[in-house]
Amino acid sequence: MIKNILLTIEYNGKDFAGWQIQPESRTVQGEVERAVSKMAGAPTKVEGTSRTDAGVHAHNQKATIRGDFGIPTEKIPMVLNRLLPGDIKIKAAEEKEEGFHARFSCKGKQYVYRIMNTGEKDVFAAGTYCFIESRLDEKLMNEGAKAFIGTHDFKAFMAMGSTPQKTTIRTIYDASVVRSGDLVEFFVTGDGFLYNMVRIMAGTLMEVGSGKREPKEIEQIITGKDRAEAGRTAPPEGLYLNEVYFEARAYDQR
Amino acid sequence: MIKNILLTIEYNGKDFAGWQIQPESRTVQGEVERAVSKMAGAPTKVEGTSRTDAGVHAHNQKATIRGDFGIPTEKIPMVLNRLLPGDIKIKAAEEKEEGFHARFSCKGKQYVYRIMNTGEKDVFAAGTYCFIESRLDEKLMNEGAKAFIGTHDFKAFMAMGSTPQKTTIRTIYDASVVRSGDLVEFFVTGDGFLYNMVRIMAGTLMEVGSGKREPKEIEQIITGKDRAEAGRTAPPEGLYLNEVYFEARAYDQR
Repeated sequence: MIKNILLTIEYNGKDFAGWQIQPESRTVQGEVERAVSKMAGAPTKVEGTSRTDAGVHAHNQKATIRGDFGIPTEKIPMVLNRLLPGDIKIKAAEEKEEGFHARFSCKGKQYVYRIMNTGEKDVFAAGTYCFIESRLDEKLMNEGAKAFIGTHDFKAFMAMGSTPQKTTIRTIYDASVVRSGDLVEFFVTGDGFLYNMVRIMAGTLMEVGSGKREPKEIEQIITGKDRAEAGRTAPPEGLYLNEVYFEARAYDQR
Repeated sequence: MIKNILLTIEYNGKDFAGWQIQPESRTVQGEVERAVSKMAGAPTKVEGTSRTDAGVHAHNQKATIRGDFGIPTEKIPMVLNRLLPGDIKIKAAEEKEEGFHARFSCKGKQYVYRIMNTGEKDVFAAGTYCFIESRLDEKLMNEGAKAFIGTHDFKAFMAMGSTPQKTTIRTIYDASVVRSGDLVEFFVTGDGFLYNMVRIMAGTLMEVGSGKREPKEIEQIITGKDRAEAGRTAPPEGLYLNEVYFEARAYDQR
């Protein structure tokens, strides 16, 4: 029986050239398609919600697969996990109605950007955090992050040379910065994100946290719509796709 | 002033083709030589104690460098850490007498082999543990490990096709297996190790832990001196060079 299955996928992006399949490169989509096709006994496409960049991680990427897998849906994660490398994990599989699609049915996403705020190297955490030695003021960063909330034109937070978009207006439902010990996390939830938007937001907030900018400048940067006014693009290793929402505004308030 | 410096180095071996420098490959020695040469302003050799294999980690690899570095010895770790990638850390630098050499002055080493004994994947720990799903009996493994202690001919625990050695006799000062939750660790301390010796010991102990062999077989395998009688070579990702000793038997009893 043909089923339309939604997978929840966790991955460590460190050793991947990103989500999207590419010839000659190790990609998450490529590895998952290989495993799903092996399970199905036939070439099977995997459609992900978010095309995360090289080095970017996911706790809960979502992807749809369609086919006759000949096994109960609840057994799919176990079968795929054995076919997949150690840095990709299938956390769940659930049947969805015909026409449901991981990308087109998506109503919102939450990202988290993780900064390890210490001068102490941790070789086993390399590639899974952004390490920043100088002390960041998370209260100022949180104050700055609040300016992102709402419906705005985020043109200033889109990478130069991005594929032109129909609109650069996006709605951010929530944004906050919290510290636990040396770990500083920037959570941001919205209906959609422009190319490199979270990394430019994070880079700008780091400049606020280190005292190079004031929190109130964030609002001015949004209004100015000029990429050159925003901060640098934070490196990919700190970024995690945290949640994907398929119901409008059914998001986790943090 | 020319100084002979001993470095203590930690690294995550996951993305390295091992310690030893090789053209076209990312190696720990290659990265450290590049950083040390940059610091010295002149090509400088780095001599390590142990040539760890591809994928093998170190908490305390030791290496000697000789030169006029023009900075106080205590500043060397900070300078090198900034020149090195995130997966290599210089933990310490100390001046040693002329003629002291990381490899030739070494009197003993401790390795630890780490097994994550769970069926639950951890994508962020991939490549830094050996994941084994079926429950291992660490008491039986510990009993088996005790048979390694003493001076024995460890020919059965040397990889086939290894470079011929003057002798395959080695002294193991201590060997034990301990569990903390899902983590099972095999510690082994000796005056020297044959090629793949710890990984073959670990693979054999895993067969004891899963009930495929009895602990008393270890002694028989040592006596038989036949590689085919020992277990499989455990994968590199579980292996860590834990300590290096420069005084005879000045080792940590675990």
